[in-house]
Amino acid sequence: MLELERDSLFKMDDIHDISKEELRERTMEKFRSMLYHLQNESVETFKRRMSIVSIVDPGFWTRFGVHYGLFVGALQSNATPGQLGYWFEKGALGLNHFIGCFAMTELGHGSNVPGLETTAIFDEAADQFILHTPTLTATKWWIGGAAHSATHAAVFAQLIVHGKRYGTKCFVVALRDPKTYQLLPGITIGDIGKKMGRDGIDNGWIQFTHVRIPRGHMLQKHTKVSRTGQVKEPKLQQLTYGALLQGRVTMVADSGHFSKKALSIAIRYAAVRRQFASSHANGIETKLLDYPIHQRRLMPLLAQTFAMLFTGTEMTDMYNIMMSHLDGAKEGDEDLEGVIEMLKETHATSAGLKAFCTWHCLSIIEQCRQSCGGHGYSAYTGLAQMYQDFAVQCTWEGDNTILTLQLGRYLINSYREALRGKQLSPGVGYLNRLDELLHTQCQVNQLEDILSPEIIIEGWQVVCAHSVRKAGIEFEACLEQGMDIDDAYEHCSQSRLYAAKLHSFGYLFHRFADGVSKTSGDLYDILIKVCLLYGLYSIEENAGAFLEYQYFTPPQIEFVRSSVNRLCKQVRDQAIPLVDAFNLSDYVINSPLGRRDGNVYVHYFDQVKRSNPQGQHPYFDRLIKPLIQREMNEGLDEDEQAGLESESDEE
Amino acid sequence: MLELERDSLFKMDDIHDISKEELRERTMEKFRSMLYHLQNESVETFKRRMSIVSIVDPGFWTRFGVHYGLFVGALQSNATPGQLGYWFEKGALGLNHFIGCFAMTELGHGSNVPGLETTAIFDEAADQFILHTPTLTATKWWIGGAAHSATHAAVFAQLIVHGKRYGTKCFVVALRDPKTYQLLPGITIGDIGKKMGRDGIDNGWIQFTHVRIPRGHMLQKHTKVSRTGQVKEPKLQQLTYGALLQGRVTMVADSGHFSKKALSIAIRYAAVRRQFASSHANGIETKLLDYPIHQRRLMPLLAQTFAMLFTGTEMTDMYNIMMSHLDGAKEGDEDLEGVIEMLKETHATSAGLKAFCTWHCLSIIEQCRQSCGGHGYSAYTGLAQMYQDFAVQCTWEGDNTILTLQLGRYLINSYREALRGKQLSPGVGYLNRLDELLHTQCQVNQLEDILSPEIIIEGWQVVCAHSVRKAGIEFEACLEQGMDIDDAYEHCSQSRLYAAKLHSFGYLFHRFADGVSKTSGDLYDILIKVCLLYGLYSIEENAGAFLEYQYFTPPQIEFVRSSVNRLCKQVRDQAIPLVDAFNLSDYVINSPLGRRDGNVYVHYFDQVKRSNPQGQHPYFDRLIKPLIQREMNEGLDEDEQAGLESESDEE
Repeated sequence: MLELERDSLFKMDDIHDISKEELRERTMEKFRSMLYHLQNESVETFKRRMSIVSIVDPGFWTRFGVHYGLFVGALQSNATPGQLGYWFEKGALGLNHFIGCFAMTELGHGSNVPGLETTAIFDEAADQFILHTPTLTATKWWIGGAAHSATHAAVFAQLIVHGKRYGTKCFVVALRDPKTYQLLPGITIGDIGKKMGRDGIDNGWIQFTHVRIPRGHMLQKHTKVSRTGQVKEPKLQQLTYGALLQGRVTMVADSGHFSKKALSIAIRYAAVRRQFASSHANGIETKLLDYPIHQRRLMPLLAQTFAMLFTGTEMTDMYNIMMSHLDGAKEGDEDLEGVIEMLKETHATSAGLKAFCTWHCLSIIEQCRQSCGGHGYSAYTGLAQMYQDFAVQCTWEGDNTILTLQLGRYLINSYREALRGKQLSPGVGYLNRLDELLHTQCQVNQLEDILSPEIIIEGWQVVCAHSVRKAGIEFEACLEQGMDIDDAYEHCSQSRLYAAKLHSFGYLFHRFADGVSKTSGDLYDILIKVCLLYGLYSIEENAGAFLEYQYFTPPQIEFVRSSVNRLCKQVRDQAIPLVDAFNLSDYVINSPLGRRDGNVYVHYFDQVKRSNPQGQHPYFDRLIKPLIQREMNEGLDEDEQAGLESESDEE
Repeated sequence: MLELERDSLFKMDDIHDISKEELRERTMEKFRSMLYHLQNESVETFKRRMSIVSIVDPGFWTRFGVHYGLFVGALQSNATPGQLGYWFEKGALGLNHFIGCFAMTELGHGSNVPGLETTAIFDEAADQFILHTPTLTATKWWIGGAAHSATHAAVFAQLIVHGKRYGTKCFVVALRDPKTYQLLPGITIGDIGKKMGRDGIDNGWIQFTHVRIPRGHMLQKHTKVSRTGQVKEPKLQQLTYGALLQGRVTMVADSGHFSKKALSIAIRYAAVRRQFASSHANGIETKLLDYPIHQRRLMPLLAQTFAMLFTGTEMTDMYNIMMSHLDGAKEGDEDLEGVIEMLKETHATSAGLKAFCTWHCLSIIEQCRQSCGGHGYSAYTGLAQMYQDFAVQCTWEGDNTILTLQLGRYLINSYREALRGKQLSPGVGYLNRLDELLHTQCQVNQLEDILSPEIIIEGWQVVCAHSVRKAGIEFEACLEQGMDIDDAYEHCSQSRLYAAKLHSFGYLFHRFADGVSKTSGDLYDILIKVCLLYGLYSIEENAGAFLEYQYFTPPQIEFVRSSVNRLCKQVRDQAIPLVDAFNLSDYVINSPLGRRDGNVYVHYFDQVKRSNPQGQHPYFDRLIKPLIQREMNEGLDEDEQAGLESESDEE
């Protein structure tokens, strides 16, 4: 962190007052120093560096990630070993005469990759593909790095050979002459312009007009096209999807990291800001953080952040294990069916968690911002920009609603498999105990016994079992009515969404409780409170499900509500140490309201003065002077009749 | 609207690409044309004009409103007739050598007006007040118009006469020489700088260093200070608060208006955008709006918008009636107690609704933005800026959480009065039927009968009665434990908040149902569906309360859920006519995705190209060329040992 902070290129405290153009230029400037680190430190160190960069400067992180994450990732997933070597040799590995971008989405097509319109037609005579944008809606859109940075693009287009369509494949297409950055023939590129956030990245649009590339520029790890136009498709298309999940997995962890940053600001500010005098405090105003309602605003969010952090770690592990098995499967020494099962689970889990966590993180940022009152609206507090930068995570790498539905689909499917007696993977294992769970009610001798991870886990399993079953029954009723599978899934989409949402709540709590159970001593004592707070708060938020499915009775739900109040107070007592434990430096937090020393007003005032030096009045002479020193009664002439004598009605 | 659209100053389609400095200057430029209209058209016409301006250009609306709303409003509320005449004569009415601002909030003090630190000490010898900023946190902060516009400020400061404090009063203080705009002696002003939104307004900070003003510059409609320092305080301080509610009342209506704009964009886009092919449509992709899940995303928001529009009208009427009675009361020919009752009700209702509606509107804007997928992240879609501009409404004129708690306090108070047999005003009249409601369950012969405004109204009254009573009981228990009133209210703040939230849901539905009942024919047929959708959707969202208080059974709640699905589909069939009925022109909507002609891609592409003309590469030579054409292996020297021979271990 210190290195970043000392690097003048990574100066962040003036970030709110520079233009999009300056921001883009500065963002490009950082490439060189980051490349130096990439080439001179271990992968682990570099990953840690990038994870800090991602919360310090998400725009740069994205821009750098377009080449090394998306473009190189596309090569790794889709190129044969020989092709990979070729492009690395050509400069893709070290940015030598080469910067890549990732051209998947189109103006008219986002989530539906098979529906992309761009065509890649094989010309056998020339042994080339012809890339072409046939319509306006086929224009490649949102392509990060296209406007100003990239020399090459990984283009997703419809493979057409001898008139036959083979679906969307990936092609490397040169866009610019690396010597001059002039566009190559047939390439039209424009700037997407201003965005909600992450303006440091130069998103662009691209149109291809009959652009010819050698046959070898189609990445042929999976589907192969021979010299004579023979197309060989892979047997197990599924196995190619693994790498695509990486982004989603990262975003689960990211949600925890951005929430940490937002809460560091809001909680530190609330520990300093005083408002309204208590009647017995000699006129000294009360700290925001000492108000029960302010604890209610922030402590559940803090608990949720811990839940996301534990889940992010678990999700990353699950992904890494899956990927290592997947590699084994490709090499042939793994149980293929088991690996596919694992892939499905990782796919559905990461889809659901990406959606769930990014939505919650976005909401946490906004709630933190609002909890800072008026100062939350100042750009210098940093939470507004954080919101704007983060918001895209709810859309990219899969629209959150669509991803949640994918998890819902997996749940319905798992439910049906469980009915057929199949042993499910752990995350949905509760569906194997359906009969038991459907008749389970909370059994406690006294209300206090509800304050237990086991009870909460059981409660979530019960409501999840009910809601998944309900979606499953609805789905099967649709099939019985003669709908096809896709229509049936569409028809029960609301139930799917609801089941997936409940499942994710339960999943996060389970991960959190598991994580806490591995700690001990003082750490355990505080984390278990945070964990219970998360569990009970999320039950309160979904009280309808717990009452409808009769896991809890109304008095038990009332107990849950009052316990959340009590736990908020208890967690508040540890809130500052918990935030300090996030260990984000003032540089990373980049907000005067979140300063570790608590001297928020002085830092805030300094920042505002430094960022807005006073000079000449910018437009007094041109605008204000003529306005307020104008002759009176302008506009309509005062003597409206222009000399005309008025006729009296009385005459 | 046409006038605005034709006024080149009100050009809005380049708004996303101009700098804060340009935006501020352009915003100031509009003053003159608006002033012309103010002076040459009826109040009604001008109000309509401003209500359109508010959704076209909220930054300008705020800046203009600072003078005519806040400053002139402060005069009207606090000045004696003679003082009012003096300041109008001096130029405050027509902006002659005069622009006012409203200096209430301080760096360390927002919601707690009695806690402001700025002092106004009476100097009897000189017959002057000395305005002073004693600390950093006393710096006037967020003052709209202070940075570049205002000549005078209405300053709220602690009145101190002969050493005794009399609380916060309002003083007019000259800030700048209107001829030169030089700051006057003792005045220090700075620019607050970049904000989340509304950058067209020049918020500033102000510090006073022993600034002397004549005694007559204290506005003395209520509290009077004589030549010898005799302070005469008003008998009924309460009666002075009426005018302060205007802003909140406006924001209830505003929430409906901004929601209309957001939904016009999201629904029109969803009617054009196609995604994923249905299996029986020959590969033609399905419109987003035809997906049940997309209907679920947008139709309840449309219903909520109608609820806010009906409620906004009702709230405005309530306010106007209250104000006319208040004027009567001041003149002495009104039942004073009745008027105070009315004032209390209007105060609490407007506080609760301001919070409820601005929160929901902000959420609607964001949900609309996300429903546009990736394109929602483009600035040109307009929803990002709309969010950023609107967000402040959740904080200014009373932080939403605090306002919601005020409504909660009123509800507890009403509950206790009802127990003592008092007849309550209509909005909380259900608390007079507490015993009956606490034992009411939904009585229907068949589930279909739930689809009735009467049942929904009753249901809301039941859950509100329960939740208010619960908060009331908690409050009284605190009193019995010996807490003072303020502590008792703090202690039960979560129950207050919850009761107030439920009350607001019920209140909106009631207003909506009342409004619809006055329509007939086709209009009734469609609006009743929208109304039922809002009612059932809001029940679904609060299913926990309806189940906990046993108004509905679990099967009835399931019926509510499935009915929401059905109603979404029915309202979707009328969604385009409903949006067209909002009658917002393309100019007002200012989003290519919301174009009435449905030709969204062409307009969007045009906008992006127009806003981002291609020129020379801005930084190829400086940054990219040296990066990608660099010598290889920079950084650590390749020959790290610098000629040193390696010692072999084997020697």
